[in-house]
Parts: sequence; C-alpha cells; structure tokens
Amino acid sequence: MALKSKLLLVALLLSVLFLSVYVASATQDPELKQCRHQCEHQQGFDSKQREQCEQGCDKYIKQKREEEKHRRKSEGGGSFYPIPETGRAQEEEEEFQGRQQQDQNPYFFEDEHFETRVQTEEGRFQLLQKFTERSDLLRAIENYRIGFLVTKPHAFVAPCHFDADTVLFVFQGRPAVTIVRGEKRETHNLEHGDLFRIPAGTPVYMVNRDENEKLFIVNFMKPVSVPGEYEAFYAAGGENPESFFKAFSPQVLQAALKTEINKLERLFGQQRQGSITRASKEQIKKLSQQHGQGGSEGFWPFHGGQSSSDAFNLFSKHPSQANKFGRLFEADFNDFKQLQDLDLLVSFANITQGAMVGPYFNSRATKISFVLDGEGYFEMACPHVSSTGRQEPQPQPQPQQRRKSSPRYQKISGNLRRGAVFVAPAGHPMTAIASRNSNLQIICFEVNAHDNIRVPLVGKKNVVSQFDREAKQLAFNVPAREVDRIFNNQDDEFFFEGPNEQPEHGRAFA
Amino acid sequence: MALKSKLLLVALLLSVLFLSVYVASATQDPELKQCRHQCEHQQGFDSKQREQCEQGCDKYIKQKREEEKHRRKSEGGGSFYPIPETGRAQEEEEEFQGRQQQDQNPYFFEDEHFETRVQTEEGRFQLLQKFTERSDLLRAIENYRIGFLVTKPHAFVAPCHFDADTVLFVFQGRPAVTIVRGEKRETHNLEHGDLFRIPAGTPVYMVNRDENEKLFIVNFMKPVSVPGEYEAFYAAGGENPESFFKAFSPQVLQAALKTEINKLERLFGQQRQGSITRASKEQIKKLSQQHGQGGSEGFWPFHGGQSSSDAFNLFSKHPSQANKFGRLFEADFNDFKQLQDLDLLVSFANITQGAMVGPYFNSRATKISFVLDGEGYFEMACPHVSSTGRQEPQPQPQPQQRRKSSPRYQKISGNLRRGAVFVAPAGHPMTAIASRNSNLQIICFEVNAHDNIRVPLVGKKNVVSQFDREAKQLAFNVPAREVDRIFNNQDDEFFFEGPNEQPEHGRAFA
Amino acid sequence: MALKSKLLLVALLLSVLFLSVYVASATQDPELKQCRHQCEHQQGFDSKQREQCEQGCDKYIKQKREEEKHRRKSEGGGSFYPIPETGRAQEEEEEFQGRQQQDQNPYFFEDEHFETRVQTEEGRFQLLQKFTERSDLLRAIENYRIGFLVTKPHAFVAPCHFDADTVLFVFQGRPAVTIVRGEKRETHNLEHGDLFRIPAGTPVYMVNRDENEKLFIVNFMKPVSVPGEYEAFYAAGGENPESFFKAFSPQVLQAALKTEINKLERLFGQQRQGSITRASKEQIKKLSQQHGQGGSEGFWPFHGGQSSSDAFNLFSKHPSQANKFGRLFEADFNDFKQLQDLDLLVSFANITQGAMVGPYFNSRATKISFVLDGEGYFEMACPHVSSTGRQEPQPQPQPQQRRKSSPRYQKISGNLRRGAVFVAPAGHPMTAIASRNSNLQIICFEVNAHDNIRVPLVGKKNVVSQFDREAKQLAFNVPAREVDRIFNNQDDEFFFEGPNEQPEHGRAFA
Repeated sequence: MALKSKLLLVALLLSVLFLSVYVASATQDPELKQCRHQCEHQQGFDSKQREQCEQGCDKYIKQKREEEKHRRKSEGGGSFYPIPETGRAQEEEEEFQGRQQQDQNPYFFEDEHFETRVQTEEGRFQLLQKFTERSDLLRAIENYRIGFLVTKPHAFVAPCHFDADTVLFVFQGRPAVTIVRGEKRETHNLEHGDLFRIPAGTPVYMVNRDENEKLFIVNFMKPVSVPGEYEAFYAAGGENPESFFKAFSPQVLQAALKTEINKLERLFGQQRQGSITRASKEQIKKLSQQHGQGGSEGFWPFHGGQSSSDAFNLFSKHPSQANKFGRLFEADFNDFKQLQDLDLLVSFANITQGAMVGPYFNSRATKISFVLDGEGYFEMACPHVSSTGRQEPQPQPQPQQRRKSSPRYQKISGNLRRGAVFVAPAGHPMTAIASRNSNLQIICFEVNAHDNIRVPLVGKKNVVSQFDREAKQLAFNVPAREVDRIFNNQDDEFFFEGPNEQPEHGRAFA
Repeated sequence: MALKSKLLLVALLLSVLFLSVYVASATQDPELKQCRHQCEHQQGFDSKQREQCEQGCDKYIKQKREEEKHRRKSEGGGSFYPIPETGRAQEEEEEFQGRQQQDQNPYFFEDEHFETRVQTEEGRFQLLQKFTERSDLLRAIENYRIGFLVTKPHAFVAPCHFDADTVLFVFQGRPAVTIVRGEKRETHNLEHGDLFRIPAGTPVYMVNRDENEKLFIVNFMKPVSVPGEYEAFYAAGGENPESFFKAFSPQVLQAALKTEINKLERLFGQQRQGSITRASKEQIKKLSQQHGQGGSEGFWPFHGGQSSSDAFNLFSKHPSQANKFGRLFEADFNDFKQLQDLDLLVSFANITQGAMVGPYFNSRATKISFVLDGEGYFEMACPHVSSTGRQEPQPQPQPQQRRKSSPRYQKISGNLRRGAVFVAPAGHPMTAIASRNSNLQIICFEVNAHDNIRVPLVGKKNVVSQFDREAKQLAFNVPAREVDRIFNNQDDEFFFEGPNEQPEHGRAFA
Repeated sequence: MALKSKLLLVALLLSVLFLSVYVASATQDPELKQCRHQCEHQQGFDSKQREQCEQGCDKYIKQKREEEKHRRKSEGGGSFYPIPETGRAQEEEEEFQGRQQQDQNPYFFEDEHFETRVQTEEGRFQLLQKFTERSDLLRAIENYRIGFLVTKPHAFVAPCHFDADTVLFVFQGRPAVTIVRGEKRETHNLEHGDLFRIPAGTPVYMVNRDENEKLFIVNFMKPVSVPGEYEAFYAAGGENPESFFKAFSPQVLQAALKTEINKLERLFGQQRQGSITRASKEQIKKLSQQHGQGGSEGFWPFHGGQSSSDAFNLFSKHPSQANKFGRLFEADFNDFKQLQDLDLLVSFANITQGAMVGPYFNSRATKISFVLDGEGYFEMACPHVSSTGRQEPQPQPQPQQRRKSSPRYQKISGNLRRGAVFVAPAGHPMTAIASRNSNLQIICFEVNAHDNIRVPLVGKKNVVSQFDREAKQLAFNVPAREVDRIFNNQDDEFFFEGPNEQPEHGRAFA
C-alpha cells in the first residue's frame, strides 16, 4: 500500500511536471510558440499534418538561430559604426540586448529576412519576407514584395511567368530580357539604371550579356493572385525547375499535346540544372537580338534609356536634387507611364561618403528602400512603437494604445549595407547617413505616390522656417528669432554634410 | 490518515485527469477546436453567450458530419469518372484518404459548401460559403460571393434589396425582373443567356414567366456594406419573409406611416408563405409588362439581347473561340458597360462531350467557374499548396514556406457536375474536360479582368513555341527541334479533343 | 515517510490548484483574456515584455471598469428617454442587462469609446476607437477614424502633421487654420458650417479667433500610413508636445541643423504646456491674417463659404430636404471637389424637436453620424446581428451563420446626445428621432458615396408604393389597396412628425 501510494505519487508528480513543463515551454520562444499555435489552429489539419507542421517549426527555429549566430560572427570586423541605438529605455538595458533588439525593429530588414527562392551554380533569387509577417504596422504595403536576382556573367534565367506585376531595376550587368505578349516576342537589352516592367502573367526569360560583370537586379512586385504571395510558374523545365505541365494527369497531357506519354516523359525529364544556367557566347548573341519593339525585328546595336517604351533609364533624366553631398534621380509615371497603375515612384539616391539625406518625410507615400552599395545607417522617428522603449509593433487592439497624452517618438535605426531594406511610412521623419568610406547608393520604391510631397525638415526650404512668427513662438515657447537662428543655419538642400562623429547611444536629448 | 491520504490521492488523480483530458480534447477536431476557440475569444461574450456559442459548434460539427456521410452514400453510382487524383504523395496513402482529400481542395466547391438562404415550396436560393472561409489562398476574391436561384414555373420572388452589387445570368426560365430606381420602376423580360446587373440597394422582384420551365439563375455578388457578407432586406412581407419594418418600435412606425398600430399589425402579419411564392397567370402577365426602360411604358412584346441597355445576352455576340470541341462566349465592359466598375468579365464555355479546354492561364484575372450542366472534371497546377501532397493552404507565416528551391506544382482537381464551383487564380495553368456523355456548360466570372490576357499553353498559339530556339534548348535541356516537334503537334486552339481514357491516379510523371 | 508523503501531497495539491486557477482565471473576462492572449502571442516579445504587456491589460481593465461605474452614476438624471430597447429576446432578460446590453451594440458609440489624445488646460482632442476594434461588422469603414477637437476661446493648436487625410467640420468657434504646402503658407479663416480638407502630411496649426465662443470641430480622417491608425507628428515643441526632432541622435541633429547641441537642447526644451495653449489677442490677429490663397497676401476681412477653394460652407447651399420637421444640407464632390478622392459626402441634418428623419436606407454608402447638439434616439434594422436577441457581431466563420431561412432583423438603437456616434451600413433601414426638448443636429460622413441613392421607406416617395399592384399583393398577401392605404398616408418627405409617446420596449410586433 505504501509502495503503491508512492508509485501513485510519482505518477502524479510526473503528470504535474509534464503539465507545468507544457505550460512553461509554451512560453519560451514567442516565434516558436506562434508557429506551433498556427499548426494547432490550422483548419483542416489532421493530427499527422499537425505533427509535421510542428516539426517544421522546431527545425525552422533551430536553423534560424544558427544562421543568426553565423551572421553575427562573420560580421565581427567590417562595420564602420557600431549598431546605432534604437530607443529610449535602452541605456539601462544595453548589456543584455545587442542583436535581439535590432531584430525587433519592424522597419528594418537584413539578410536573415530574405528567403532564397532559387539557388544554382550560376546565381540566385532572394525574396524578402512579407512585410506583414514582420509587423502589422506595415499593413499599408502588405501587398508588395521586394527581391533581388544575382547571377554570374553569361547566366541564363529560364522562362517563367509570375503571379505578380514586377518592376525591375538593373544595377549591375547587361541583361537581355525577352517577354512574350500575345503572339509577340520582345527582347529588351537593358543596362545599368534601367527600369523595366513585366506585367503579371507574362512569360519572361533573360540572359546576362556581360562576359565579366555579375548581374544584379532589384525586383519590386505586386502580387495579383494571392495578395502578398509571389510564385513563379515554369512552363519549360524538367526536374529542376519543375515544369508545371508535370502536375497534369498523363491522359490530359497526352490529349492536350497530342503526343505519346513516353515522348513527353523525355521532354520533361532532361532539365536538372535549375532555373539559372550558363549560356554560351553564341546563345547569348542570339538571345540578345532585339525584336518586337516598335516593329524592328533585327539586331539593334544602340542602347539608351529611350531605346524602348517599355524601359526607362533612371539616369537619363537630370537629377531632381544634386549637390556635393549627393544626387537624387527619380522616375514617376510621367517619365515612365508603366508606373501609373502601380501608383509608384522609383528613385535612386547616391549619398556622398560622409554625407546625409534629410531629415524629411513623405506626405502620403510609404518608401521602401533597398541598399545597393556602400555603408551607413538610417534613423527615423516613429510614434507607433511602444513607449516602453522597444521597437515592438503594438498589436491592434492593445489597451495601452488608449493613451491620454501627446505621442512619444521612438528612434528607429539600423546599419545599412548592400541588401539591407528599410521602410519609411508616410509622415515619418527620416534620415540616412553614408559612412566616411564609401558612397551610399539606395534604390527606393515609393508606393501611394500620387500627390505625394517630400517635406524637408532642415535646410533651405525646411518647413519650420515657414511657420508664422507667432506660431514659432507659441509652439517652441521661445522667441521666434531663436527658432529662426537655428533653422536658418543649414543652407544646403536635401543632401547635407554628415555628422563628424558616429552617433552615441540614445536619442538627441534624454 | 491512510484513508485521507488515499482520498487526497484520488482527488489529485481526478484533477490531473481532468486537466489532461482538457488538453487532449482540445486537439481532437481542428474545425471544432477552431470554432470553440472563436467562441472563447469573442470579445464581449459573457459566459452564457460563450456557452451557447460552444453548443452551436458541437451541433454544427455533428450536423456537418451527418451531411457528409449522407452525401457519400448518395453518390455511390452516378459519377462517370472516379475522383481524379490530387497529388504527388498520394500513391502511398490512397486507401486512407478518399473523400476527405477532396474536401481539402481549397479551389473546389460542391453542394455541401452552399448554404440555403431561402427555401419554400416554390423554389430556393443557395449561397456559396465565403471564399476565405475555405482558405486564405482565396483572399484575392474574398469580397465576392456566388449563389444561384432555382424556382418552379410561375414562381414569384418577393421584393427586397441587397447590400451587394449583383450580376445575374439566366440559364433557364424566362424571368421578368422589376427594379425600382429613384421614382422609376423598370421591368426587364430576360431570357436564356441574359446578363443583368442589379446595383446594390436597389429594390427588386421577379417572376418566372415560363409555364413549364424551371427558373435557374446564377448570381455573382460584390457586397458593399460588410465585405464578403451578403444579406437580403425585405420591405414587404410579414412573418416569412419578415419585413424589416417590424424591427422598428411601434411608436416609431405609427408616426412614420401615420397609421394606427392595429392596422400595421394586420398589414405586416399576413405573409407566411416565404419569399418565393406562386403567381397566377394573370399576375404574371401584369408583372411582365415592361415599363420604364427608354421611356416605353406599355407592353413590349419583342425580346432580344439588346432590348434593354441594362441587359446583355451572352449569345448575341459571336463566340470568341469556336471549333467542333467547344465554344466560348464572352462579355466584357465594352459589351456590357455595367461590368466596368466591377472589373468583371463574364464568359460561357460549352465544351463538347469528350473534349477539353486549355491548359491555359489568365495573366491577371482570377476566374470563378460555376458548372451549369453536364459532367467532367478539371485539373490545375498550383505552387501554393503544401509539398506534402495535400491540398492544404499554407497559413501565411508558416516557416516551411521559407523554402530554398524552385516551386513544386501540385495537381488540384475535382469532378464537375451542375452546381460545382472551381476557382483558378491568376497565373495558374488549368484545364477542364467534358465527360463522354454530355457537353459541359460553365459560366465563368473573371475578376480583376482589366488588361487580362489568356495565355494558351498548348495548341496553335501556345506560348512555348514562341520562345527563342536558344531559350527552348536551355530551358528544356534538349535540342529545340524536339521541343517544337511536341509543341507543334496540336493544331487546334483553345478547345481540343479530350483524353481517350479516364485519368489514372497521380501526376503526369512521378 | 508519512510526513514526506504528506508534504509531497501538499506540494502536488498546490501545483494542481495553481494550474486549475490558471485555466479558470483565463476564462473570466473575455476582454482581459483577449488582451492577455495578445501579449502572449505577440511575435518577438521576450518574457519581460510579455509581463509588462500583461500588467498593462490588468490595469486597463480595472480602469475601464471604474470609468464605466463612474459614467453610470453621473448619468442618473438627464436623459429624456429611458434607453430604448435593442432586441427581441430582451423582454425576458431586462432586469439583468441594462447598460451592458447597450455596450454590445456595435453600431453605436458613446463617451467611453473615445480616447483622449490631447488634453491641456486650453482644450482637448478626442479620437473614437477604431471601428473594427468594436466589431468586424464595421470592416467596410475600418480605414476611417472620427474625432473632435474642443478648445477654449483664443486657444492655439500647435503645428503638426498627420498620417491621414482629414476633413474637418466647424460647428462652433472661428478657427484660423494655417497649412504649409511646399513653399507656400496659407491661412484660412473658417466659420460655423465650413468644411475644410487637410491633406495627409500637411503641416497645420490653428487658433480660435473667437474671444467668447469655444471651438468645436469634428474630424473625419482616412489614414495613409498604417491603415486605421492615426498619429500626429510635432516638428515644433519640447517636452510636451514632444518634438519628433528629439528622436534623432544628437550627432545627426547637429549635422542636419548645423547647430551645436547645447543650443538645440535649449530650443527643444522649453515647451511644456502641451499642444493646445493660449494665444494673446495680438498673436491671434497676426495668425488670422490670410495669405497664400489665390495670391492675396494681405488681410482678408470678408468671409463666406466661397472665400477659399479649400473650404466649403455647408449652409451656403440650399438644403436638399426642408420642411417644418427638419432640414438637410449636403456637400458632395460637385460642391467641394476635395471630397472626390475620399469618395465622401458630408451632410448636416437638423431635426426639429419632436420630429424624425426616415426610415430610409442608403443604397451603397455607409453613413457615420456624429451628434453635434440636442437629444434623441435612433433605430436601425439589422440582419447581421445574431438571432439570440443580442447585438453581438457574429465572428466571421461562425457555423451558426449557415442558417436555412430568411433573415430576421434586429432592432439596433441608442440614445443620442452630443458626442454620440452611430453607423448605418449600406442597405440598412434607419431612422433618427429628436426629443421634444431640443432640435437634434447631426453631421454625417457618408463613405462609398459614389452612385449612392437614398431610398425612402415612408412618405410621399416611399419605395413600397412604387411596386406593381400584383407585387404588393403577392408580397404582403393582402389586397394591394390595403397596402396603398397605409403607405400613402404619410405625405411629407424625409422629415416627419415624430412619435407622440416614447417608444416602449421591444420591436413593433412580437
């Protein structure tokens, strides 16, 4: 009896422990928990599917952590500035936070936020995660995606179509892009600075004509089939890329193509090299022969921004801002009418080393910036993040939002290097600063561009100087001339000389 | 003491058991769990409401299972093909899956996905569930609804208005539809093939003029008040349909209608037959007198597709595709300008018995197809469903999506018969095949129709044949002439001779 | 051993109790639970953040309850009618429900649904909660916000910009509103009845020119940066309002403004009075000098509805409806072209004491009404609320929605007084009744206004009278002349004599 009682006790103890662990473990890692929670609540999952889903979560978290660890190590030296600080309450918590903190900045994206959609010997395509996967604060741009394509010289990118409208910007390499519209095939030989639109559902393939230079293309995409989701559809292909023809029943395919199954098996079975392969010089020459545009079917030796109504070279226009501290090139729908229905403006900023752009804000547009080259950092003032000093997006119906006072602005910031992405929502004041070692080159996609105005906060045309004397005095509670003395000091415009020293931790004033 | 200890142990054991059961039971049925979860988290529910809500869940699940069981039994014989296979991993799992599998195809809808909104002796109106209730993958069409109305000859459908724009297609019967716009009443005598738009909030009633033929109307709706929700508002009526006047206070109603309450009680108390009743020949004759359109108030004996600018007959135009294997009739906003603000194209496909349409894909439009008559099946290639071989929509932030390779395409398929609905999102290659016994007639609503292009994947104008020689070779990794040999075999267009045999399980090639 | 066993038992007991309490407590208050649930599932929260979040929940719920208690007490006397009834099942449950019931009406908002965004000695700005925070049934207007500004005479509202398009309506006071667009500053002297649009991102400040009258302005806002969220950005300011300049690093700010940090500290450190302060007579005079509009730079002594193309006076137009029972003034985009891209119509209804408006419904528009003055109540028929007699929004995928019969309409109602807000979705019949003591004045924002029609349900042009004789008879199941006798009684239009008595509980007829 005493033994039984003890056994029972042990059993109970174990049960209770199990339950406690269950409750405790579920609170360990928020992302893991979130992931498992979704597995559990996914409608229609049976228990086996749920199990697989949960295993996927564990694996993903483990992998992510290893990647992060790896990244942190490999960063050790190169960055010219330590990571700038990101909030008010941090002074007290610095030692404990480090990288973690940075990861919680919902407006800033780095390598680990991209997934690799295609990877072969010859190149890769990386796609940034969905903006709303990161934070609900980015709902305004939830149906846009950003990605980039990098290939070796002479790489061929296999034919496919996308369920998204795509605008691409050529930063490096010389791609010959071929699209098929209706019964017409068009080839466009693009160069550095070209913008090109590929309408959703258009079969496209391309080759890097350059023998020496890598191809580097940035893609801005607006999905049309599943909002926020982006997929490629390969008609041609085999095992890798898989042709979508292979999803149909053999009987259906035989009838559709009027061909016996063994021939089809052969056709759709040879390609195993993936969707980015290597083309021969001869093939590149043939693939670069322009046809279809404006009726000219032959070889077209001359290239320029205006060579095709379907492409626009950002550098073919005078910069809209230019001084020794930087230059800004812009294309709106007046320049490139294919941007109109996307309500998009594309700009390219080249910030001289040691210089800065802004602070300014966009009145209506939300700007998605992709760093092409150089190093630096950005800062942005944001009233949406919580006043606890963390860059946490507030979930929508959070009671704390029912605040009773004026907004507090948190500093959002991040170190910029090639491949970093940052988002500046409408109304949010922001600035970007180039390192002292290299120019900072950024391509920006501004959505909701119609009627947008850039409002400068410092420099010759800053908005504060334009207030009435009385407004200055009442707003700052100092004599108006004191306001003017400060806001009239800076007489450059848009691009300015940057800070002498690296920024210290924290905000401007405690 | 020993006894007390034992009692305590028992109590503890029971507590632990209770907790374990609590945790275990919550994982039993995903849909039930989901439902109960919503009851629990519904803001503002008190405990009694939560209890009722949970009871509703249990009841609903029980009922759903019984309906399913019933359906499965009653299906036994009639289908001409066994259910086509739906995925790669299935070969191994066939014996266990059956119907369940089919139910998880988020692009395919059958009887059990409709709810009966109106049912009387004389007819019924059935409404398809919200697309996003089925799957998040259908978010692009979340604010559209599909339904159909069936009535006996000489049925009258009571006056009401809807909080949705409606486009109706008359497949059977000859309805006289009366709408009230401002101070104008218009009657439209519609026939087989007519499209007609009823703007949101427009009072409407109709009668089936035909003495012998049933009325069969398909409705496409775009809600304006609660996105994705669709309701009818009956001004006239009594107990059934209930008049919305009855929701107001008696005092308010008396003042508004300047009438004593007992008279109002009489007026709003007589109708108990429901919103679809039987009209006499005399009444039908009167109700069919056209007035209001183009100023003609009198009887209008002649009907045609062009009789009213508010209706358009799909068959009044030459088919846009026609051969011995099928015909396609289409109306876009150029034909019927009332489709413009809905960004809608309507098409009617009549696929000859034993023939097929496609494979093709829409570049931008998402197509919602409703089977009007005949039998057959459809197949579609989809990269969005999980690679486990199940047609499961992936929840948005699922880590597995962070895949590192080219997409895999799953086969989505379903048996078609009257009332089946299937959805082909933009970019997704699809085909539909008619049985050898009957023509397959389908009405299609294509949303996001502006600038959409149908891209043929086989036949005379197939897109693969248009690729450069070099692209063919590089993409398929076989000589280009081999590609051409296969893709030039089929020289029909859009409609083709179908497969000789029924499809076997699985995809084209393992 | 026995002792140890007992100790173990106690430990176990405590553990089990703890777990039971954990599970039980989580089900106590749905809002609290929801709040804590969000804390728990917030991606990226570490355990400390989660803890803070949860403490915030507790605090908020406690505070909310106290506020409610306080409100209920202070209401005791003044209301002229007891709260009208809101549903069918209520007769049985009255004694228990009271205020709670009212709170669950998702179309009706009172004081407690506003948050105070700014509060100083001189005035305050109150913002209504997000519509979808209240109910999913309001998704159609989820990206609109309503608020109001009240200040003392001679108050100055500090310069800021918003991440939302704003339309303001001046009900009391005489504000001089200054906006900065590009390099142009414009001052607009507005008066009672003026509508004015402030584009998103436009720096604006204002002063109440009136020496005696309070300023009372109603704001309609459409956010552009985070859908449904609304924030102010103060460039000028100090501690309160905080200037967003203070979020940047000192180094960055020094470089941007070319000014030493100690001078900046002084400039951004003086303002502590908040964003609504008091201006002197002299300052007001200066701030009211109009410039910038149409080139006139000087003082502009004459004011009228047409004084500026950027403002429109609602009362400058003839009322679109007017009789002894009330008057309706309207502005659509033809009157005020700045309403066009917002798809907005603004109307002002002045319902004579003891009179009523409607019942009518909007065909497409959803109307958001804000009570400016007077008392009364509204009633609306709604098919979307649950048939349990509670004004509970049904969560989207609730199985109970799969109903099998015609809709039942619930009465939605609420007592109106200054600051009450009610929403009438498209298609929903509604009426509003003024008390016998005062005129009821309401400003209405109708979104989705394009092609909207108001459909009158009673009075001279009521829609029922326009049905065919046969339709009346078939629909009501009584002779058509009986229908006419009742629906032709009321020969006024839109505004009518109100009910003699206050409404009793319940619907028109049981």
